[in-house]
Amino acid sequence: MSTPLVTSLPDYTEPAQRLASDLGYNYQPIRAHRFPDGEYRVSVPTQPPSHIIICQSLDHPNDKLIELLLAIQTLRPAGVKRVSLVAPYLCYMRQDKAFHPGEAISQQIIGHFLADLVDDLFTVDAHLHRVDMLQQAVPLKNAINLSAAPALGEFLLQHDLHPLLLGPDSESQQWAQQIAEVGGFDWAVANKQRSSDVDVRITLPNIDFQNRVVVLVDDVISSGHTLAQATRELQKAGASKICCLVTHALLADGALDLLHQVGINDIWSSDSISHPSNVIHLADMLASELQTLFRS
Amino acid sequence: MSTPLVTSLPDYTEPAQRLASDLGYNYQPIRAHRFPDGEYRVSVPTQPPSHIIICQSLDHPNDKLIELLLAIQTLRPAGVKRVSLVAPYLCYMRQDKAFHPGEAISQQIIGHFLADLVDDLFTVDAHLHRVDMLQQAVPLKNAINLSAAPALGEFLLQHDLHPLLLGPDSESQQWAQQIAEVGGFDWAVANKQRSSDVDVRITLPNIDFQNRVVVLVDDVISSGHTLAQATRELQKAGASKICCLVTHALLADGALDLLHQVGINDIWSSDSISHPSNVIHLADMLASELQTLFRS
Repeated sequence: MSTPLVTSLPDYTEPAQRLASDLGYNYQPIRAHRFPDGEYRVSVPTQPPSHIIICQSLDHPNDKLIELLLAIQTLRPAGVKRVSLVAPYLCYMRQDKAFHPGEAISQQIIGHFLADLVDDLFTVDAHLHRVDMLQQAVPLKNAINLSAAPALGEFLLQHDLHPLLLGPDSESQQWAQQIAEVGGFDWAVANKQRSSDVDVRITLPNIDFQNRVVVLVDDVISSGHTLAQATRELQKAGASKICCLVTHALLADGALDLLHQVGINDIWSSDSISHPSNVIHLADMLASELQTLFRS
Repeated sequence: MSTPLVTSLPDYTEPAQRLASDLGYNYQPIRAHRFPDGEYRVSVPTQPPSHIIICQSLDHPNDKLIELLLAIQTLRPAGVKRVSLVAPYLCYMRQDKAFHPGEAISQQIIGHFLADLVDDLFTVDAHLHRVDMLQQAVPLKNAINLSAAPALGEFLLQHDLHPLLLGPDSESQQWAQQIAEVGGFDWAVANKQRSSDVDVRITLPNIDFQNRVVVLVDDVISSGHTLAQATRELQKAGASKICCLVTHALLADGALDLLHQVGINDIWSSDSISHPSNVIHLADMLASELQTLFRS
């Protein structure tokens, strides 16, 4: 059997090359040219091996989903038998039910689209709220949801902060708890009430934040409003330093400005989505999980 | 059998409503909300009839292809048995071969994607260059490529211009000839040599353009460079007025400015793609073709 090849779309070259290097495989890019009319011309590696690993996060997903369709349907007739998609950030996981009649359950539809296209799917900290297992969203035997908590916990341990970890809402409890367990950190969860996209109220738990280094932890930053509001409350409660540690830096326009304005001290993220706040590479963890699966 | 319902994505409401009105069917929108992270929440009409007609051109296609996937996979479990897609402009038809090794043949891949999703597909003046039949690109029994030439010819007849129609290159011959036949107009074809995306050389045919109203005809305007260059040559050759008539106004940023700068007198298009140059509604023709098929 020939050695697998690692590839990616142009915006994800660095994390994919890092994964290839950790696995000891070669990297070759998928090329994609955007025409002025919004269509893409996609080119895949020629004479591919029978097993291709596509390392590609799926933030801002629609162009990428079509580019992946074009790439994979070009690789298959060129002899590729197994496509392993490593998508550290997986798209459309939040729309997991029809909140109003007629709404598409995008998690299921995009999950099936991906399951039809690839053979294995690895992701990290997928936003699974009403389903327990990634396989319920992406119906593949090898649909594997990894946790970045060990890598995030290790990062905090190395920085000797003695932090108190705070999840800003009940959904973030799992990340707070898991990261805390890595380093034996204190942890707690706040209560969030949301009245609109931008209007969020945070109630802190009844513990002493005075002179504590507080690290807000969550799976994803998107608008930044929740974290901004939590920062304001922590300032009132006397925290000495307030940082934020997330897996996915999916920051909307203006989110970073908002967080800097309210005076957050640091924002740290994994490289699941390329962003200036990236401080944690996921490649080691991904490589180790892939090797375990491919050897089995 | 219940009456079919016409629907569309938000950007195509007007042409879809016009089609619904011509067919005597109701129109209800597919709603689509774009989140800041580039994902879409799509909502379809509730309690849909068993036959849905989606009227939606596919210019700037990737978001629309994903929105259609979400919409149609929500309509199917709600009881929809037949989906007829009316896409006056059909995407990805130009990449109809691998011009270099490894290139995706997007025409085939997107054609199969659409054929898996819908039951009938109607389009207008699809850019079929190396394939003869739309079915070779979109493998459906009812994959129907209509010609806008009768509607475009009628438009010219009503304007009493006694024009000479000129196709700017050999690929445009079919449009020039077909439109000319509707009104009994003179027609000819120029010769184009392209050395880059923006560097185009046009050689006019050896006929007298002095004091003629010349209408440049083509299936699509995209960059505008070909038509701009043809306009310059026609000005040198003494044409009294130079206009442009196309089915698809797929104008890239700057194309309209370029054409106005070189002094083109008028730009006319069908409403296959919404654009200020739209002067010809395709709804009548589309309604008549749909009725013919649905009655058969």
